[in-house]
Amino acid sequence: MPNAYQNMTDAQLDAAIAELEAQADDLRALNLKLDMARGKPSPEQTALSKPMLDLLTADSDLSDQGVDADNYGAPDGLPSARALAAELLGVDAANVSVMGSSSLNLMYDCVEHGYVHGIGGNEPWCKQGVVKFLCPAPGYDRHFTVTESFGIQNVPVPMREDGPDMDVVREYVEKDATVKGVWCVPKYANPTGVTYSDDVVRAFAALSPAAPDFRIFWDNAYAVHTFDGEGDQLMNIFDALAEQGGEKNLVYEFASTAKVTFPSSGMAWVTASPADMAELRRAFSAMRVSPEKISQLAHVKFLKDAAGVAEHMKRHAAIVAPRFALVEEKLTAGLGELGCATWTHPKGGYFVSFEGPQGSAKAIVELARELGVTLTPAGAPWPYGRDPEDTNIRIAPTYPSLEELGQALDVFVVAVKLVSARLARSERAA
Amino acid sequence: MPNAYQNMTDAQLDAAIAELEAQADDLRALNLKLDMARGKPSPEQTALSKPMLDLLTADSDLSDQGVDADNYGAPDGLPSARALAAELLGVDAANVSVMGSSSLNLMYDCVEHGYVHGIGGNEPWCKQGVVKFLCPAPGYDRHFTVTESFGIQNVPVPMREDGPDMDVVREYVEKDATVKGVWCVPKYANPTGVTYSDDVVRAFAALSPAAPDFRIFWDNAYAVHTFDGEGDQLMNIFDALAEQGGEKNLVYEFASTAKVTFPSSGMAWVTASPADMAELRRAFSAMRVSPEKISQLAHVKFLKDAAGVAEHMKRHAAIVAPRFALVEEKLTAGLGELGCATWTHPKGGYFVSFEGPQGSAKAIVELARELGVTLTPAGAPWPYGRDPEDTNIRIAPTYPSLEELGQALDVFVVAVKLVSARLARSERAA
Repeated sequence: MPNAYQNMTDAQLDAAIAELEAQADDLRALNLKLDMARGKPSPEQTALSKPMLDLLTADSDLSDQGVDADNYGAPDGLPSARALAAELLGVDAANVSVMGSSSLNLMYDCVEHGYVHGIGGNEPWCKQGVVKFLCPAPGYDRHFTVTESFGIQNVPVPMREDGPDMDVVREYVEKDATVKGVWCVPKYANPTGVTYSDDVVRAFAALSPAAPDFRIFWDNAYAVHTFDGEGDQLMNIFDALAEQGGEKNLVYEFASTAKVTFPSSGMAWVTASPADMAELRRAFSAMRVSPEKISQLAHVKFLKDAAGVAEHMKRHAAIVAPRFALVEEKLTAGLGELGCATWTHPKGGYFVSFEGPQGSAKAIVELARELGVTLTPAGAPWPYGRDPEDTNIRIAPTYPSLEELGQALDVFVVAVKLVSARLARSERAA
Repeated sequence: MPNAYQNMTDAQLDAAIAELEAQADDLRALNLKLDMARGKPSPEQTALSKPMLDLLTADSDLSDQGVDADNYGAPDGLPSARALAAELLGVDAANVSVMGSSSLNLMYDCVEHGYVHGIGGNEPWCKQGVVKFLCPAPGYDRHFTVTESFGIQNVPVPMREDGPDMDVVREYVEKDATVKGVWCVPKYANPTGVTYSDDVVRAFAALSPAAPDFRIFWDNAYAVHTFDGEGDQLMNIFDALAEQGGEKNLVYEFASTAKVTFPSSGMAWVTASPADMAELRRAFSAMRVSPEKISQLAHVKFLKDAAGVAEHMKRHAAIVAPRFALVEEKLTAGLGELGCATWTHPKGGYFVSFEGPQGSAKAIVELARELGVTLTPAGAPWPYGRDPEDTNIRIAPTYPSLEELGQALDVFVVAVKLVSARLARSERAA
């Protein structure tokens, strides 16, 4: 379907471009300095967790079920921290290691384990020649950077409205033994906001990989990050595995409190099958001494259990939801009738994924930058930064204030319109 | 020189053994359960840092020189944390990254960088075939475990009273391009307590490695851990490098607050030349998001500066020094006249290194275990756990109470004597 600019007469289009250029000039004159690039909580959000800082004092008992939080030991984390982490993912605490504050760091270490030591007794990937990871795209750029840093080939897989295209995933995983992993953000995916359907989760659990050292990297980063009502329900991948019967060593699942409490100063954890966890623990024992248990103790005192986390996340939602509503409102008002763009309508997570006309994304991001608004670089959510259609832009609305966000979206809308109109004119010229 | 048991007549020796066996039986009957194995601070020591928990509250400003401690960002750490870390090592804060709570984890990541990505643009070690690390021994077992976990060959180098045997180090490093690193604990070395002399530090700085991707892993774990008077002075390795003129990319230096505040819940850091740091930062950027800056903020508020750290370490010394004095006293009283053992007399750190007769260490550790005292496994301070003479035992006196330590040392002395006497008898039989 042609968009509104493509439907205009030449004269109408020239007039539209002139008017949009005038609007852009007015915006440029404001010397704005706004940022919609960063998937980080706003200061209002991090302030929600400041009461945690009052919970440990010089007089506190720093032990947890007989484990000293203030000394070495307990390489899998404090018992209470493991229980909380397990409850949030619906898994057995015996299969959970809570370590460090960054789940990305744990993912890196699991890739490194495959690359350096080998998974399940198989030859290390560094000795196997070509190794590939599947990258549902658009996806999380830092995932792709991890595998790229090992020289692993990142292979894009189309994302659909219910998750990755499982026909493509199955074809690769079951026929190509050089495919060793797939990056997944199964709930409120970065950047699309998609939550994988039960069918997709079951299809992942049912995979029969060609490579015995293939693992699904299941980054449940937004497990509790609902801002719209009841939110989406993600099927527990370990329940889906159990449906298959027997024990399958197929999934490494990750999560953290990064966007629950303080980013970079929280708890991160990994869970997997008993056999996989035994193997990961051996690998981790050379990498780490023991985890940050003082922080873990503060977290369990503050968050308590899954119900406590849900209560806390409602406070985040009260701050975040109006920002996402503003994105929806501004994009609908500015672009809804033009037919040149679509965007996602997530019920949780940190991002809206925006699609402009073919060949527009880089130009929109560049024009927005000129007008004072920083966006995530176009292409970033694709392996090697290569968006094949140059259409996708990741919008991160959480960090700016509502007022700044509104201004930034006004700039964004003008940039989208002007780039779309110019594209319509150059198509006509060609 | 023969020891006292070797000098006895057969009858005297049999009588001595009988008496020691009776003493051992009496000790066994006590059903003791004591531990001299663990290089960890005692509860009294960790309690010294509990006031830190009062310094951040819900009302605190969580920023540091314009950097938010409670959100993502500042991959090299808070400005104040970098300044403190730099001051403690006498280096430029611009060349310091403060990340995580475990310096061992940073060392692992630096080895991994060489193995996976390659150092200084050279081929990754995983593509180079045989790779070796030098391991001054006795040394720190967890260092050796890191390189062993990569399949790197750990090569023992003799430790002397002023540091590693630099003739051996030089021969390996300057002639063998498969030698990529050397593990060093230059001050109050684990387990000998030796501080490297200025000559040794200068000899390290003067190395001209055959391999361009050779680095010295300078683990200054006990930089501030003096318990006896003024303690030892370690020459700053970067000053020694500066004496060489020009910029040499030769040293990765590590340190942490692990045994200053709370083990596993502190600050760890790495420093190197500007070029090496730029390279490490690129590698770290795939591994990590950003560091635990809330913990860093609490640490800098508590410790303030190098003078504050020194003041705090005096409080540790008041707790630790009597334990080391008791080791000296009990070993001297029990073994001083027998000529069958020597041990080190460190002015700081966490360990005493003990040398018994040839072929005695495993038997002593086993006998002590039977009598209720856990010691570090014999051989642990050697690559692959292989103490060539089976003489060395690491004594870790900090964790037990003084009373428990006294009991444990009494057991240890009886075990040393009985094993030495039995060895004298079996020599005679042979």
